Parts: sequence; C-alpha cells; structure tokens
Amino acid sequence: MDASEAAQRIRDGVLTSEELVQDCLERIRALEPKVQAWQFLDEEHALAQARACDERKRGGEPVGPLHGVPVGVKDIIDTADMPTENGTALHEGRTPRDDAAVVRMLRAAGAVILGKTVTTECAYFNPGKTRNPLNPEHTPGGSSSGSAAAVGAGMVPLALGSQTAGSVIRPAAFCGAYGFKPTHGLIPRTGVLALSRTLDHVGLFARSIDDLALLLEQLHGYDERDPDTRPRARIPFRSVAGEEPPLEPMFAFVKTPHWERMDPDAKEAYAELREALGKQVEEVQVFVSGNEPWDWHRTIMEAEMAANLEPLWSEGAEKLSEKLRALLERGKETRALDYQRALRRIAPTVEGFDELFMQRYDAIITPPALGTAPKGLASTGDPAFCSVWTLLGMPAITLPLMQGENGLPLGVQLIGRKGYDARLLRTARWLEKKISS
Amino acid sequence: MDASEAAQRIRDGVLTSEELVQDCLERIRALEPKVQAWQFLDEEHALAQARACDERKRGGEPVGPLHGVPVGVKDIIDTADMPTENGTALHEGRTPRDDAAVVRMLRAAGAVILGKTVTTECAYFNPGKTRNPLNPEHTPGGSSSGSAAAVGAGMVPLALGSQTAGSVIRPAAFCGAYGFKPTHGLIPRTGVLALSRTLDHVGLFARSIDDLALLLEQLHGYDERDPDTRPRARIPFRSVAGEEPPLEPMFAFVKTPHWERMDPDAKEAYAELREALGKQVEEVQVFVSGNEPWDWHRTIMEAEMAANLEPLWSEGAEKLSEKLRALLERGKETRALDYQRALRRIAPTVEGFDELFMQRYDAIITPPALGTAPKGLASTGDPAFCSVWTLLGMPAITLPLMQGENGLPLGVQLIGRKGYDARLLRTARWLEKKISS
Repeated sequence: MDASEAAQRIRDGVLTSEELVQDCLERIRALEPKVQAWQFLDEEHALAQARACDERKRGGEPVGPLHGVPVGVKDIIDTADMPTENGTALHEGRTPRDDAAVVRMLRAAGAVILGKTVTTECAYFNPGKTRNPLNPEHTPGGSSSGSAAAVGAGMVPLALGSQTAGSVIRPAAFCGAYGFKPTHGLIPRTGVLALSRTLDHVGLFARSIDDLALLLEQLHGYDERDPDTRPRARIPFRSVAGEEPPLEPMFAFVKTPHWERMDPDAKEAYAELREALGKQVEEVQVFVSGNEPWDWHRTIMEAEMAANLEPLWSEGAEKLSEKLRALLERGKETRALDYQRALRRIAPTVEGFDELFMQRYDAIITPPALGTAPKGLASTGDPAFCSVWTLLGMPAITLPLMQGENGLPLGVQLIGRKGYDARLLRTARWLEKKISS
Repeated sequence: MDASEAAQRIRDGVLTSEELVQDCLERIRALEPKVQAWQFLDEEHALAQARACDERKRGGEPVGPLHGVPVGVKDIIDTADMPTENGTALHEGRTPRDDAAVVRMLRAAGAVILGKTVTTECAYFNPGKTRNPLNPEHTPGGSSSGSAAAVGAGMVPLALGSQTAGSVIRPAAFCGAYGFKPTHGLIPRTGVLALSRTLDHVGLFARSIDDLALLLEQLHGYDERDPDTRPRARIPFRSVAGEEPPLEPMFAFVKTPHWERMDPDAKEAYAELREALGKQVEEVQVFVSGNEPWDWHRTIMEAEMAANLEPLWSEGAEKLSEKLRALLERGKETRALDYQRALRRIAPTVEGFDELFMQRYDAIITPPALGTAPKGLASTGDPAFCSVWTLLGMPAITLPLMQGENGLPLGVQLIGRKGYDARLLRTARWLEKKISS
C-alpha cells in the first residue's frame, strides 16, 4: 500500500491514521535494531498526531491530500516539536523554534511527522549509524541515509531528504526506494541546514512515482525567505504524471566520464535496459569538456559550505569529522575567481541541455551510482552520477527497476529538462510500465 | 538652457535640433583643446542625426521626450555607429555590433548621440586625457571624466557615465555638474563594459535636477540580459520630482569614517550648510562597524573585476596600466569565503538604512568627495565618499551648490532610500531651492 492509496483509504473511512501509524511503528520496532534509520522517534507523539487527524476527520473538518499519512523527515530539516541535530555533536539536543517551510507544508496537507531520520554529519560524507535494509553489511548511501532506508524498509511510505551532491538519488537507489530531486528552487529550503544556496535541494523518497507526485504537489511553492523560489501557479503534478505521453518517449542514454568506473554487472544491466528500449533510446555524448562540470560542482560546494558552516567551525572545529574539516579547509582557500567562473558556467550548460530536450529527447537515462550499494559502512558511496545534475538544478528521479548480481537493487536514473518536473514524472511512469510488462 | 527647456523649444518649433547641436559643436571647438572631454566626435555624423530629427518632426512624425537633444556617452557604453574603446589600448578601434540598451533607449526617445566621452582605463583609476573645465591643472575626477567635464563645460546638456566606486558622483562634483547614480538595477547595463555585476551602475550627468529626472524617465526599465533589472511600471520621475514635498524634509548628516581626511574649507562649507538647514538636519552615526563596508566594497570589486576582465588580461596584460594590473592580481587572490561574506552583508546593511528612512529621514547628506577637485592629473581623486552607497545600491545625487576656497565647486551629495529615486529627486529640488534662496 503506497501513500496515495493509504490517503485514499483514510479519506474513505476504511482506514484510520492511527492504524496506519501503528503499522509503521510495528515494522520499525521489528527492523530498527538492524537498520537504525531513525535519529528521533517518539511513538506516543506520532500516535497523538495520528489520533488528532482521525479526530478532525470524525469532526467533519476538511482533510488535506496527505491527511493522516506518516512522513519521515531528515534530521537537517527543522521541526518545532522534535530535536533537529544536523548529524553533528555540536547540535546535540538542538530544538528549533520553527518548522521548516516543508514541514509546515506537510502539516498543512494533514501529514503526521513520524520522526526524524538519520543524516550523515551535516549532510556531508561522514556516515551516520544507518545500515542498508536489504543487507546490513552494505551502506544505505547518504547523506539522506535514514530516509532512504526507512522508505526502502517499508517503515514509512514517504520521507524527505536533501541533495547537494547525490544525497537523495544515490541512497534511494541503494535502498530500493523511489527518489526524486525536483528542479532547483521548486521546493523552498527555509529551515533546512544550508550548505550551498546554489546546490541545495529538498528531495523526496517514496514507494511509487504517484507518491512522489503527490508529495511534490504539497511541497512546491514560493517562500520569501528562499531567494531561489518564485511565485508560480500550483502545478497539478499528479494529473500530469498520470497521463499517457502523447508520443512514445525518446531517451538519451548518457554515460558521463565516470562510466568506466561502473561495476561490470551494472554495465550489463544498463545494456539490457537499452536493448529493451530499442529505437527509443540513443546514446548521446554530452560531456564534451570531460570532467569540468564536476570540478565546477566541487568548487561551488566547497566555497559555499565553507561560508555556511563557518559558525560551526568557530564553535568547535575539533568536534567535526576529519572529512568535513578537510572540505571546509579546501573551501576556505577557494579563490573567488574560480568560484565565479564555476557559477557562470551553470546557465549556459543548462541551456545546452535545454536544446537537447527541445530537439529530440524526453529524458536522459543514466545510472544513479556506480552499481549496487557497496559493502561496508565506512563510506556512503560515490555521488559522481548525481552531482552534475544537482549543479545544473535539473530534475532527477531514480526508479528501483533492476538488480545487481548480489540481489541488491540497481536504480534507473532519469533526468528531465529544468522546470519540466511533471513531464519527467510522466515519462518515468511510462518507462516503469514498459520495463515491468 | 537645460535639456528640458531645449526639448520643449524643439517640440514648439522655435529651435531646431541642428541649431542646438551646432551650438554644442561650437562650444566644443572652443573648449576641447583645453578640456579634452571627447574620445570620439564626428561633427558630420552628429549633425546628420540632428537633421534627421528635424526632418522627422517636419514630416509630422511623433517626437520623443528627448527629440533632437544631444547626449554624450561614456566610451565604455557600446554604440553601433561609433567606436567604443573602453579606455584601453587593447580595444583600440573596437566597433560594437549593437547599441547598449541605454543607447537604444536614448535613440528611441529621439536623442542625438553627440559623441563618446573619455573614460579612465576600463573605468578604473588610471586617468584619461581629460582636464577639469574649471581649471585645467586640476583633475576632472573619474572614471566618467569626459562626461562630467563635457556637461560641466556646457559642451552638451546631458551625458551618461557609470559608477562602480565613485565614478559619477565624484567627477560631477569636481566639474560643477549635477550627477545622479540611481538605485542598482533601475537602468539596464547591457552593452556597458562589465566590471562588477554587484556594483556597476549607469549614471547620469546634467545641468539641472529636472534634466536628471527627464533622462532617468527614458532610461529605467527591464532588460532580460541584465539579471538585476526587474519588470516594473514606468515611473513618472519628472512629475514626482517636480512636486513639493508634503512635509518639510528631514536630513541625516552622515560624516562616515573618512570625514577626518576632508579638506578644512570643505568641512567649513558643510558646517555652514548644516547651519542653513537648522532643525531640519541632524548628525547621525551610521557606520558603527567602522571601515568594514568599504572593505566589503573593495573585496567585491576586486573579485568581480578579476573575473570580468580575465579576457583582457589574457589578451595583453602588458598593455594594462600598473594600477589595473595590481587590482586584478589582488582580485585573483581574493578568497571565495571573503567574497561571499562581503556579498552577504549588503542586504542586511540596506535594511538598516531602510529603517533610518522609515523612522525619520528623507535623505542623507554627505560630501561627494574630500573637497574640491585636487590639483594634478595623475589621480582622479578618492571615491571613499561614494563607494559605500554604490555597494548598497542606494540612489545618490550630487548638486553643485557650494564652492571651495579655490573657487572650484563643492557638491552636496544626497543619498535616498533604495528604490525611492523619485522622492530623492524631489527632496534634492527642495534643498536646492532652500539653499539658493
């Protein structure tokens, strides 16, 4: 049962929010000792929210599209009723005064905030305690490790994460969840730990494309405190995503300069996928300047994180991991010239991709990662197949449609034209149907 | 006769554009050997434009608000029919394909583009050939040296310049002209040599406040290629500027941390000005953090100029002046962290000034420079009294209302609330009337 179906049943009165939340809590009790997806979870508080939802419905109050549906929230996203520790000892016990904009939006849609999910340290690379629900010896990916694992394990139907390099798409793919990083600026980031204004995105985890559309419909919008959001009409993501494409879609298969590092079984799986799509997929060389866009991403991430995490550094650099300290040190030394050069390359590169979509293709297909979730918990894996789309702010979705030799999931990542999120969801639905049939 | 009057006479048919342009050319012939304000001036081309204006009027075609009025254009502003050399040997003979947005707007309003005025090298500090029209042993100021000198000398009623530190207000004050740097983003900069997106402004020179309002009315607007302009209603600057203020205005006298360096006679002149304004002026301490805003300005200017002038540097660093090379070298070494820090201070500082205006004051009064135009031509003077208002993007105007001991003009600079340009013009008119009476 996905979130869309659960919400419908609650609206129809054949399921209560309390029952749904109880089911989630039972599954969490069973799996959490192994998976460790949650940073904060107060069963009583979750049930109280659920009962209040049921109460409101019984009282005849209007119900929102997510009425009574539990959602997990990454622990870098502020919640006024639960701690938000940003994955760092420096913020232990931190209790924000306000909900983040997205949490406010979730509550307005009727959702139950089930609990806070584990993040890596400051959403960067130092792992948290979470393990891959499909094999606890493997990483769940990061930085939205807990959200990916919780949804992958069926502990909660929906969760929020964030992506500055590959922190939504990669863990979703590793944990067998559907992951979605919408266009930059579509979802407001107010109240989310700021690493990089240019690169930060709120991202979504779910168990179906419909659920991603349902969730995005609640979360997109203008927030005057996020300067990259714009006043815009409310977009009916669910209806567009639910339509049949007017023509059979064309896909551009993009290997990127990192293709050679891919696991052999993953390469094979993508070859089979291309075969299955026949004439509807063509390989396209888009990264003619080689690794440059990855360098721009790194330069911007390092420079902006160094500026944004300055207060943490001053407060207690010694309590930060070596990985994060090294990043911040590099960021402090980044030259304004290189930073500006990198920023200036984004818009023309996006325009180049716009043309690709205008001329011929409905979506890019590219791996979400080098293969299935790597063994070991010391690293959350390589974001190389995600970071460039994060840099460009283009919408990215991963679908758990394939498997590696080890039985772990292999995602299929689709990239859409910037600002065309609804169409990307529609194309993704078409692909899923095609592959599953 | 100012531009407003000239335009009216041309509309009324009692003056032709050709007569007006001939008058200007005669004055230029007489004074140019001494002043050297013009980088390019083709008398025949100017007269041809004037005759075409007169022809159109005789043919009954509609005439614009600047119909037949000659305007001087700083030689960093592109003109499709005249060279634009940006004050550097590297651009000798450069002929742009397109007019800058402001030149297009001038032509649409019926203006005659009289010629191109001298700029310092790349609108930075290395002087051009221009001398102060009121005393050729003194600097005209810079970087819009030619525009200020030409208007100050009565060679042309209107001219365009640009300001990234103090390049409009300072030379206007030195040459006895009215100078105006409107709010950042009000006038599009497309086709103007880009030094710094954050700091660059197009500015105006004229012989009256009415003329500045007339000119701004033609030049403000949205341009999709200047990301800091916004679609907005056309603002009737002339009518607002022409109104009486509903209440007698209150002025905040701001000394800034550079006050101690002022010339003694200038200090005295400002003391007299304050006396004349009596209870309508109060001294206000606004720079509690000392010199910091000047440091932010420098950091941003160096970093952004290094990025924008990179092509020039690669093309021929050896043809750049030592001053400019030293700036670009500092800019190349600026850290992204310091650059971001500086950028982030702008918005809250502007908000602080907004409050000052909301609570009590109509305008800030502050000197435009350390005194009258310094003797000598090796330096264009110190921009310290301008650069902070450039950083903040607040509107600044200078009025030639006073004199120094040496008989050279001393300007009175008024600063308005960001976005309140029309009201600043109205307040300036009130002040001028008050002082002249």
